[in-house]
Amino acid sequence: MTTHPCEALSADDLTGYLEECRALVLEEIDRQIPRTGALGPALYDLMRRYPFRRAKALRPALCVAACRVLGGRLEDVLPTAAVLELYHNAFLIHDDVEDASLLRRDEPTLHREVGVPIAVNVGDGMLALTLTPLLDNMRHVGMGKALRVLDVIARMARESAEGQAIELDWRRRQVWRLDERDYLRMVHKKTSWYSFLAPLTIGAILAGADPRMQWNFRRLGTLLGSAFQIQDDVLNLRADPQAYGKDAAGDLIEGKRTLVLLHAIRSASAAGSAELIALVERLSASVGRDPPARLRSELDHLVATRELSPAGRDRLYASLHLVADEAGRRSADLERALALIEGCGSVAHAQAVAAVHTRRAEHSMAAMAPALRPSVHRAFLRGVIAYVSNREQ
Amino acid sequence: MTTHPCEALSADDLTGYLEECRALVLEEIDRQIPRTGALGPALYDLMRRYPFRRAKALRPALCVAACRVLGGRLEDVLPTAAVLELYHNAFLIHDDVEDASLLRRDEPTLHREVGVPIAVNVGDGMLALTLTPLLDNMRHVGMGKALRVLDVIARMARESAEGQAIELDWRRRQVWRLDERDYLRMVHKKTSWYSFLAPLTIGAILAGADPRMQWNFRRLGTLLGSAFQIQDDVLNLRADPQAYGKDAAGDLIEGKRTLVLLHAIRSASAAGSAELIALVERLSASVGRDPPARLRSELDHLVATRELSPAGRDRLYASLHLVADEAGRRSADLERALALIEGCGSVAHAQAVAAVHTRRAEHSMAAMAPALRPSVHRAFLRGVIAYVSNREQ
Repeated sequence: MTTHPCEALSADDLTGYLEECRALVLEEIDRQIPRTGALGPALYDLMRRYPFRRAKALRPALCVAACRVLGGRLEDVLPTAAVLELYHNAFLIHDDVEDASLLRRDEPTLHREVGVPIAVNVGDGMLALTLTPLLDNMRHVGMGKALRVLDVIARMARESAEGQAIELDWRRRQVWRLDERDYLRMVHKKTSWYSFLAPLTIGAILAGADPRMQWNFRRLGTLLGSAFQIQDDVLNLRADPQAYGKDAAGDLIEGKRTLVLLHAIRSASAAGSAELIALVERLSASVGRDPPARLRSELDHLVATRELSPAGRDRLYASLHLVADEAGRRSADLERALALIEGCGSVAHAQAVAAVHTRRAEHSMAAMAPALRPSVHRAFLRGVIAYVSNREQ
Repeated sequence: MTTHPCEALSADDLTGYLEECRALVLEEIDRQIPRTGALGPALYDLMRRYPFRRAKALRPALCVAACRVLGGRLEDVLPTAAVLELYHNAFLIHDDVEDASLLRRDEPTLHREVGVPIAVNVGDGMLALTLTPLLDNMRHVGMGKALRVLDVIARMARESAEGQAIELDWRRRQVWRLDERDYLRMVHKKTSWYSFLAPLTIGAILAGADPRMQWNFRRLGTLLGSAFQIQDDVLNLRADPQAYGKDAAGDLIEGKRTLVLLHAIRSASAAGSAELIALVERLSASVGRDPPARLRSELDHLVATRELSPAGRDRLYASLHLVADEAGRRSADLERALALIEGCGSVAHAQAVAAVHTRRAEHSMAAMAPALRPSVHRAFLRGVIAYVSNREQ
């Protein structure tokens, strides 16, 4: 890489840094997953599926960069960086089961390939494997650092579950009157801790950073996390689904409380706001609603002819709650909701808020810079700030 | 309790010991789960659901008894015993989602109450919480013991995933020619490690037992685990579903490789064996098979009328794979399979094998006894050996 060490990496060089890191992390993941003959095809080979598909592997790269920019050694951080990526991929497997998703990284989801029970078990097995390298850290980097890393991992897992719980609870209780502080608190727990704050802080700990510097990296992670999530909200509404890799407006249909939507609800007229809430509730209700009437009567018929037991029908209903009614995506409701949001200028507002967080992240980075080694790692961290808010996927 | 300390506890006193332990463990679990106002109803209150329903809590009782019979202190073992119970309950939540179960401990399963996404997140959150008391052990019982306990937990999680993988792989690849060594290896990983070996070994570690004594408890756990699982196989075939609390012959319908079934396949005539395998494959195929033809054509109709997208139908098919065809349970196939197994004397054989493991556990216990404090804890461990093989539920 030829970038001057004080500059932010260009998009191309950023990709290059990510790819180099990813190659090292995948080698390490491959080492962490056992190669035991008989259990390969049944368990350990399946753990390699998701990590080895096309992915950016941003989390381990942040962890590596934070460690190295503080003078830490690659071999001290690599096992833990790999753990973060393994953790992330285990959760992706469980998320895909939860959402009955069909594709992950352009290939069939694991549960479609091997069935739900095996997929859930593979995810649990991956989480189980992460504990061993974290305990091995005791020998490799010393007791103090190893314990601090374990503390951050424990906190990260708890914050993520809390963030997820807050968001799911809003949807369940149909809570819509939320201000930006509520939103940012949820994002801090759900996105920032797991994807930015923990990787950066752990990198700093493994480099032997003092508490003040650890705090700087935590703050950078918080700001990057908010900017990243708000940009994600915007992309979800606007992007070409081909390039973005997720369903367009999927957040709206799932009833997610995005910064864009919450702004529109606050800014619209009383009538407009009520209409928007009703539209989104109707769209998102279709995701979890009872099977359509025709399907329901068909199930009742199967029970009547003894082809299906009443208990079987109940289970079927429970399963059907998982199924999104995709027809809703093309509905007039969706068009109308998008028009209302457009009328409030909420996308522009969200971009402005993201820009504030990005600028704060830049200031934060500038203040830290003198204490960071002029290096490709520092240029990468600077590049990430720009990437997070300008990315198109 | 009035039992003489050298005797095995009677069934009543065993129940009393379990209940006393469980009360202490529940208090501790209640402490380990945070009480944060806003997040209560969305997350932490839901974590209390399963542990506080009617249950034996055998795992934490084994852990407490192993520690105390070696002179360890209750306060040293209680947090870790509670972690084992929390771990167990988190897995029950995930298992219930996986199997689309309706009831757990006589009440609706968590995902039926709050939906699949919240239930999965509650389970993940419970697993996240277990790390904190295990790290706190460093301060309370010292670094050495705390690290050894963490090692056992990491191993336990891995062994359980491997055992689960072996069983699921046999079912997926339709492997039936298995001898008792194959079965016992799977049970050792899937049942013994998690339910007996880890609780007993961890109790011994926390009491400061030497490696020799730890090994004794591991061996006791292995033997108890096999005896327990074989008795479970037998009960599943024979028991009154009301008293047993699970579907009668559910293992057979799910195609589980039980000691009973594997013996019947090995002992029947060539024709009988082939017939039995075909029957069980047919029964278990119905659990994961495609929706009945009528339901399938109804889904196609909904796609044709644009009430359902093709992608929605695919998701629906994927969900339907979760649904057991309960009608199969009352089918002629099941009656015939049971008759074939009966003809091979396989239940009696399984009971004889369980009895061998029970006797070995008793010998193992007798050999350890002089080193164990004459106490209600020793009497409890002796009582458990009898309980495991005589229990009716």
